[in-house]
Amino acid sequence: MTTKPWSLRECCENFAAAGIPHITIWRNVLEDIALEEAVKIVRDHPLSVTALCRGGFFPSVEASKRAEAIEDNKRAIDQAAALGAPMVVLVCGADPGQSLTESRRQIQDGITQLLPYAKEHGVKLAIEPLHPMYAGDRSAVSTLGQANDMAEAFDSEWVGVAADVYHLWWDPDLEKEIKRCGAGGNLLAVHVCDWKTPTSDLLLDRGLMGEGCIPLKEIRRWVEAAGFDGPHEVEIFSSTYWAEDQQDYLKRVVQAYREHC
Amino acid sequence: MTTKPWSLRECCENFAAAGIPHITIWRNVLEDIALEEAVKIVRDHPLSVTALCRGGFFPSVEASKRAEAIEDNKRAIDQAAALGAPMVVLVCGADPGQSLTESRRQIQDGITQLLPYAKEHGVKLAIEPLHPMYAGDRSAVSTLGQANDMAEAFDSEWVGVAADVYHLWWDPDLEKEIKRCGAGGNLLAVHVCDWKTPTSDLLLDRGLMGEGCIPLKEIRRWVEAAGFDGPHEVEIFSSTYWAEDQQDYLKRVVQAYREHC
Repeated sequence: MTTKPWSLRECCENFAAAGIPHITIWRNVLEDIALEEAVKIVRDHPLSVTALCRGGFFPSVEASKRAEAIEDNKRAIDQAAALGAPMVVLVCGADPGQSLTESRRQIQDGITQLLPYAKEHGVKLAIEPLHPMYAGDRSAVSTLGQANDMAEAFDSEWVGVAADVYHLWWDPDLEKEIKRCGAGGNLLAVHVCDWKTPTSDLLLDRGLMGEGCIPLKEIRRWVEAAGFDGPHEVEIFSSTYWAEDQQDYLKRVVQAYREHC
Repeated sequence: MTTKPWSLRECCENFAAAGIPHITIWRNVLEDIALEEAVKIVRDHPLSVTALCRGGFFPSVEASKRAEAIEDNKRAIDQAAALGAPMVVLVCGADPGQSLTESRRQIQDGITQLLPYAKEHGVKLAIEPLHPMYAGDRSAVSTLGQANDMAEAFDSEWVGVAADVYHLWWDPDLEKEIKRCGAGGNLLAVHVCDWKTPTSDLLLDRGLMGEGCIPLKEIRRWVEAAGFDGPHEVEIFSSTYWAEDQQDYLKRVVQAYREHC
């Protein structure tokens, strides 16, 4: 998603050429090609797949939509399994037409329904808490503490959490909660970018690492001290950067990662 | 601030005519008139002053700016005392050039320096936690739990908290933290508006009560159960509503308050 204008093939070619060893695949690049072709593209490059993004969006005031969400999440698990992605990252969802408590209950229900399918296909489910500014319609899970509570309640090696600095950096409990999910084996994924001041858009104005005020190196120390040894994924949503030359931008992403993470 | 286009006189006349018994005065309406004139305007209307907004903005990487902030907060306390406002609401501040931990330390320092002056003038200081989306540059205090920790550490009848539903509604600990500050006598102010989905702007797209997804009546029950019996203040920042006819808009504010709060 960091280089959204590119197709899966362009991402794979350019990431590999830049020496990036891993890729998380968002489902938008799978829409216009057969899954077998996507699998071939990935296998033709020296890249391991970190995760498939994204499943989730479980809550709805309508039962039919909740059922559709389960089916859609099963398709995400199918895609992840085919692509060799060890996990599907869950943007859990929220419906502004009901309470956060009800949305959270439906998220737990959704994961409960999905879990046997995930386990059967060897794909983990990573609960990603989203910034509280998305609590209205994107995620009723807003803090790593809530995500940890939920993951621990499942007590399954197939459910964990994804920690994205953009969503979590402000939280005074962040270090404690990173330790907690690390110690419990639940920290499955780490995403980095930066928080710009001012931020001009709620969704599409994330910064390159070093452009903002997130203490990236400090959080990395916490994450590593918690035992996490997976890839640190750059995830930047930016209408500004997506409008630029993606080759040039990718170079700056790599440089920013090396300098600031 | 809800009717930002109006002068202090227009606010007082129109609020009183609408049967609103209280007003919180933002400092922007004091800029172009003498303080004595402002005091006279308020006294000429059947309105009690709930609070003066806003003080705070303590943190800075520059010591000179931190010292300036203290002086500016003393002027806010002078204004509050003259206008009969029992408190100054603190938007605590944050400087993206330093860590949140350092900004929080400077906030505590700032309040410590200000407290004797506040006490001397009979004006309370209300720590207002702001939504985490403002943690970069407006408030290193993001949750009611943090504000409660800070207020309790002062252990003074002159320091408490202000709870604004816009900033806090997403927090799974909200009910618990409202109980806590209510029981401790620290809940000084309550602000209401609504969270729209989608929200188009980080600052100026708050909704009228009932337009969004904040459980206003449920939060009111928590606040009242916690012993709060002060006014529930409508605080809407909205470039949309400020561009409309303010008389018509004020009627809708009153109606929305009656129906949804």
